[in-house]
Amino acid sequence: MRDLIRAKRDGGALSRDQIGRWIRGVSDGSIPDYESAALLMAITLRGMDREETVALTDAMLHSGRVLGWNGIGRPTVDKHSTGGVGDKISIALAPWVAACGAAVPMIVGRGLGHTGGTRDKLEAIPGFRTALSAEAFSTQTRRIGVVIAGQSDELAPADGKLYALRDVTETVESRPLIVASILSKKLAAGASGIVFDVKCGRGAIMQTREGARELGRELMDVARELGRKARVLITAMDQPLGLTIGNANETAEALSILRGEGPADVTELTRLLGSAMLVLCGVARERHEADARMETSLGTGAAIQRAEAMIQAQGGDPRVTVDPSILPKATRETQVRADRKGFVAEIDSRALGLLLVAMGGGRDVKESEIDHAVGIRLLRKVGDQVAAGDALAVIEARRDAPEWSEAARRSYRIADEAPPPQPLVLEDLGR
Amino acid sequence: MRDLIRAKRDGGALSRDQIGRWIRGVSDGSIPDYESAALLMAITLRGMDREETVALTDAMLHSGRVLGWNGIGRPTVDKHSTGGVGDKISIALAPWVAACGAAVPMIVGRGLGHTGGTRDKLEAIPGFRTALSAEAFSTQTRRIGVVIAGQSDELAPADGKLYALRDVTETVESRPLIVASILSKKLAAGASGIVFDVKCGRGAIMQTREGARELGRELMDVARELGRKARVLITAMDQPLGLTIGNANETAEALSILRGEGPADVTELTRLLGSAMLVLCGVARERHEADARMETSLGTGAAIQRAEAMIQAQGGDPRVTVDPSILPKATRETQVRADRKGFVAEIDSRALGLLLVAMGGGRDVKESEIDHAVGIRLLRKVGDQVAAGDALAVIEARRDAPEWSEAARRSYRIADEAPPPQPLVLEDLGR
Repeated sequence: MRDLIRAKRDGGALSRDQIGRWIRGVSDGSIPDYESAALLMAITLRGMDREETVALTDAMLHSGRVLGWNGIGRPTVDKHSTGGVGDKISIALAPWVAACGAAVPMIVGRGLGHTGGTRDKLEAIPGFRTALSAEAFSTQTRRIGVVIAGQSDELAPADGKLYALRDVTETVESRPLIVASILSKKLAAGASGIVFDVKCGRGAIMQTREGARELGRELMDVARELGRKARVLITAMDQPLGLTIGNANETAEALSILRGEGPADVTELTRLLGSAMLVLCGVARERHEADARMETSLGTGAAIQRAEAMIQAQGGDPRVTVDPSILPKATRETQVRADRKGFVAEIDSRALGLLLVAMGGGRDVKESEIDHAVGIRLLRKVGDQVAAGDALAVIEARRDAPEWSEAARRSYRIADEAPPPQPLVLEDLGR
Repeated sequence: MRDLIRAKRDGGALSRDQIGRWIRGVSDGSIPDYESAALLMAITLRGMDREETVALTDAMLHSGRVLGWNGIGRPTVDKHSTGGVGDKISIALAPWVAACGAAVPMIVGRGLGHTGGTRDKLEAIPGFRTALSAEAFSTQTRRIGVVIAGQSDELAPADGKLYALRDVTETVESRPLIVASILSKKLAAGASGIVFDVKCGRGAIMQTREGARELGRELMDVARELGRKARVLITAMDQPLGLTIGNANETAEALSILRGEGPADVTELTRLLGSAMLVLCGVARERHEADARMETSLGTGAAIQRAEAMIQAQGGDPRVTVDPSILPKATRETQVRADRKGFVAEIDSRALGLLLVAMGGGRDVKESEIDHAVGIRLLRKVGDQVAAGDALAVIEARRDAPEWSEAARRSYRIADEAPPPQPLVLEDLGR
């Protein structure tokens, strides 16, 4: 271990063997945290080349079970988002793509800081279980073609241990460590193809196009080196996705997409990602065919039925697909009003994500309990015209707090001119 | 703590306050090792500016007692060597300078790796105690003007804790951390002036002149910022100092200097360092006067008597000053012979230091027990002419081991031409 730390400290590359020994030592607890902490910081500052990142991902991936889908009779495919504010897409996307003929065995995470997590959002549904054994995860995928669950200790356990240490040693923001962490979980779930939704903008990990492109390319290349199909969409995170930020409210919004009632931006992005997944895994030969399948399964109700089946299989109350009122809801509503007229030029997603944390709906530290009922409802989005005094958003909280509506108001920038329209997808890598 | 790690990770400077909080947390155990490990690696790779290094030294220095010498009636002065092979100078220097009218309260360390430690060497004297309380350290200095002891837990305890962590996280080789570690111990012992002997060459931490100069300058500047007088000699470590490498044999050689019987190089360097100390602390006004005092105290026997007093005060058998045969000695002697004729061009100090470790006379890890009796005696030094078959050195071990004499033989490089003579002192900073 001392040799590894020294080699990386001095800017050298670690061998596949050295990386393998480290990750085995992390898994079996034989390497003390302070040694891994020093190595993580050296990696954060010195970086890792492609070969090292592949070896690290591979070692973490094989630190636990790796699921296989032999005999399932349909292609497996998955999606990963690098995390944004209001990103509830997975909840609609997974059953929708499953309804089109693919199988979607999806592992999702919890929220931390200003970004929410799909796992937390789904747990707003009464009874919904996200802690599944690898066995239950596998069985459900084979039976109904879709599952969305948290990472179990059986899959890539080294990632969980390393992540906890990175979190307390300020070594989260290292591209090779991010890539290996994302991919080891995703690849352990065994899907043959993965579409990456790399968010770019103020509310995202990657604030610049260049950074997003590099992260996307690395995710794609490493996944391909390890034998999976991969594609990357770089998408805008300059304002929250959809009209809700929270847990229960985002789940409700995601399900509304499958009823054909979702907001335009989030519906469109779900559709684009779904098409990309269908083409990637071979259910559709090309985009046009994939779009048509997505359209049909929405129109026939197959998509929402698949969501219903998934919710039921995981112990949740399936009525939620038609009746969002069974979700918890905070009842103290406060309107956020514009203090001038003009056009919404920008909505600071990061500020709204942090506001949700302050309201109890997100986590500032991993141990926080979260309140699924609180949230923020956006009434105006970028490009919308407003008059002074118009309601911009609604705070749904447990109590009145003028500072929260003030924070929400400040997250809206209102300008004299309408901003130029922004595309949802900024770039499409590796089509 | 997270803020500190992040700031240093991103190349920022830490404030005096932040550094103070870290060191307090290290001292009271409230900061977990993995956090300090990450910060140490970030410091190793990002560095620290002068102000940070001063603040770190100051915080470590004040993590325990700081000795004061009010009313002692003579100037206090100390010497620190960055460590070399065969460097037994402190053992002769401290009593010699004390005999000239200064007080020398000296804290010394143990050996690790290829360099030995004064503390180990002195412990070869039967009964000699190096573990003294701050109280006993202080009392002895006031009584007889000289003490050489190990670092007690009372002085700069944060340094001991941090050093242990640096040792296992490959963060030893960081200049600001080295400087703070050296100075916090030395300054806690309270001497008003310190002469630094910065070794330069193959057997030293600093292998290049540039590196030695930078380390020297930083030691001097930080010590001065913290209110002490300081001077730096950069000295050659291209071959071992003197004719012995070991513990008992080096102590015997050091005492022979005080009887006027020491080898030329080590006697001369001891004299130079002593003069520098006397001028620095004001006992002598200038070099010439200091040289004369050193000469006198050697000639009158005052120097060796002071060594005797020190050894007696610390429980050691004072007869050692005249009778080195009371020291332990390994009796299996093997001669190391030249395999060609020519001139000794180089003696690899590092290789000989590591050979001593292999023979049991040094430490490869901090926990090793060491054998004071084994050693290497050099019969030829750089510049000496040799014939094939001449004895170059003698291995004094517990058993015969041809690989040891072979290793010693390989550490001598013999060339056709005599090398140009090398000065002992390469540079004198801040006179």
